[in-house]
Amino acid sequence: MVKDSYLVGLIGSGIGPSLSPALHEREADRQGLRYVYRLIDIDTLGVPPEAVGDLVRAARDLGFDGLNITHPCKQLVIEHLDALAPQAEALGAVNTVVFEGGRAIGHNTDVTGFAASFARGLPDASLERVVQLGAGGAGAAVAHATLTLGAERVTIVDALGDRAADLADGLNRHFGVGRAAAGTPDQLGRLLGSADGVVHATPTGMAAHPGLPFAAELLHPGLWVAEVVYRPLETELLRAARGVGCATLDGGGMAVFQAADAFRLFTGREPGSGRMLADFSEIVAESSVGEAV
Amino acid sequence: MVKDSYLVGLIGSGIGPSLSPALHEREADRQGLRYVYRLIDIDTLGVPPEAVGDLVRAARDLGFDGLNITHPCKQLVIEHLDALAPQAEALGAVNTVVFEGGRAIGHNTDVTGFAASFARGLPDASLERVVQLGAGGAGAAVAHATLTLGAERVTIVDALGDRAADLADGLNRHFGVGRAAAGTPDQLGRLLGSADGVVHATPTGMAAHPGLPFAAELLHPGLWVAEVVYRPLETELLRAARGVGCATLDGGGMAVFQAADAFRLFTGREPGSGRMLADFSEIVAESSVGEAV
Repeated sequence: MVKDSYLVGLIGSGIGPSLSPALHEREADRQGLRYVYRLIDIDTLGVPPEAVGDLVRAARDLGFDGLNITHPCKQLVIEHLDALAPQAEALGAVNTVVFEGGRAIGHNTDVTGFAASFARGLPDASLERVVQLGAGGAGAAVAHATLTLGAERVTIVDALGDRAADLADGLNRHFGVGRAAAGTPDQLGRLLGSADGVVHATPTGMAAHPGLPFAAELLHPGLWVAEVVYRPLETELLRAARGVGCATLDGGGMAVFQAADAFRLFTGREPGSGRMLADFSEIVAESSVGEAV
Repeated sequence: MVKDSYLVGLIGSGIGPSLSPALHEREADRQGLRYVYRLIDIDTLGVPPEAVGDLVRAARDLGFDGLNITHPCKQLVIEHLDALAPQAEALGAVNTVVFEGGRAIGHNTDVTGFAASFARGLPDASLERVVQLGAGGAGAAVAHATLTLGAERVTIVDALGDRAADLADGLNRHFGVGRAAAGTPDQLGRLLGSADGVVHATPTGMAAHPGLPFAAELLHPGLWVAEVVYRPLETELLRAARGVGCATLDGGGMAVFQAADAFRLFTGREPGSGRMLADFSEIVAESSVGEAV
């Protein structure tokens, strides 16, 4: 009659609308696990992002099994951990902490989550020449993922040129010289014209940032388009891309697979990622209705 | 599909064998609640009892709905709370903290738990003259309970005479002069000879403190005997008392009803105390087998 019991949470800023509690708890219910997922919002608590270290230690002491970590704490948390998994170390960002025998181990399931989503959603995509828009935190994670999947060359374009160059430098150091390059927005026409696919990793297309990240005329049928934004699931970019005939991948897969990978790390059990994808679509549809009302 | 979700815990020293997680979680399962009960042992954490304030604040910040508090923190926690329920205030001890809108409210369900157990198990017991052995923390709680139930006079006997006198003084201030008195162990023969019942609230009879708290010859059939010890459920005292023909009440009821009252405070839902009593007997039987092996 004793069920395995798990206590996890998410630390970050403005996380009230997070879908993680529902994604984790529904899957745990199907597996017969006792599982509580709590939101620990630094804005609500009125503490600065630097408080993440104290919160992680408190969670360990109070019996949490692990934590997800999100903006703006993914880098700040690192100095408070006892060890890092290779992907988190390479990226310099942690989105998942697992407590094991009093030690706090950092992981990054944004990287593995995007890789899993890509492999599932665009299994036949050519990865010779990839253009990526966005060199922020999400951009760093998905660039690591596409290069890990075997991309020959990823060109990073960001409105902040230095940020793109810094990310490309870091990727070249980690994956080998020539695997990454930096470009500027005015080069996008040429870059996309000869690319196999484009990964979009900026906030453009979210409810708060509507619109397209680049002119729709630059899309062509030879291009696959992978999106990081998942609210809404169908962004203007994806709609335009499908109109042109591009293969597309929405941002839901990354959101689900990062959660599924965290679930596996927390519990040691294999999540049903197909069921979690179905949950995700259902929850997003419900919450969209809620927002419209 | 969304289940109400509760996160609670117990702070204390040496609480590894606590039955509270199983008692709470089984009842929550029957009510379809998502419910995790964590043990937060200050010995395991290597922190002093005074750390209870930090632990309570951390639990509030990390999304706990409430806490149980046990030895040696029931008094120490009080200065860290925002308000006290009347029974906790009268007793000067808190065993349950509920977080309500960021405030921490202290309760004492040891008092209400013993009262509920007594009312259920010894409904016809006369309460004119009650003798109580033990003036420690459990003794203070059960004396408050018997006086609340209407006991006319409770005489407290403790090996530490000052402790008995202090408790009696406090009870007289709260319940009215003459309701409580202090006695000494050598007066037990006379006291029990004219008493209606005896409440046993010392550790004698627990596995680590075997034996009888007083000579079996002092028992007589006109006496009811209520026990606070619940490991084992059948103490030497209860066995001897039943042999003489006394009505008896074991310590399991108090343990269960304090948990049931805490469950009600945490969730706002009515616990099935009969089902929790059955769980308790089953768990104690299982854990006794475990200890024997």
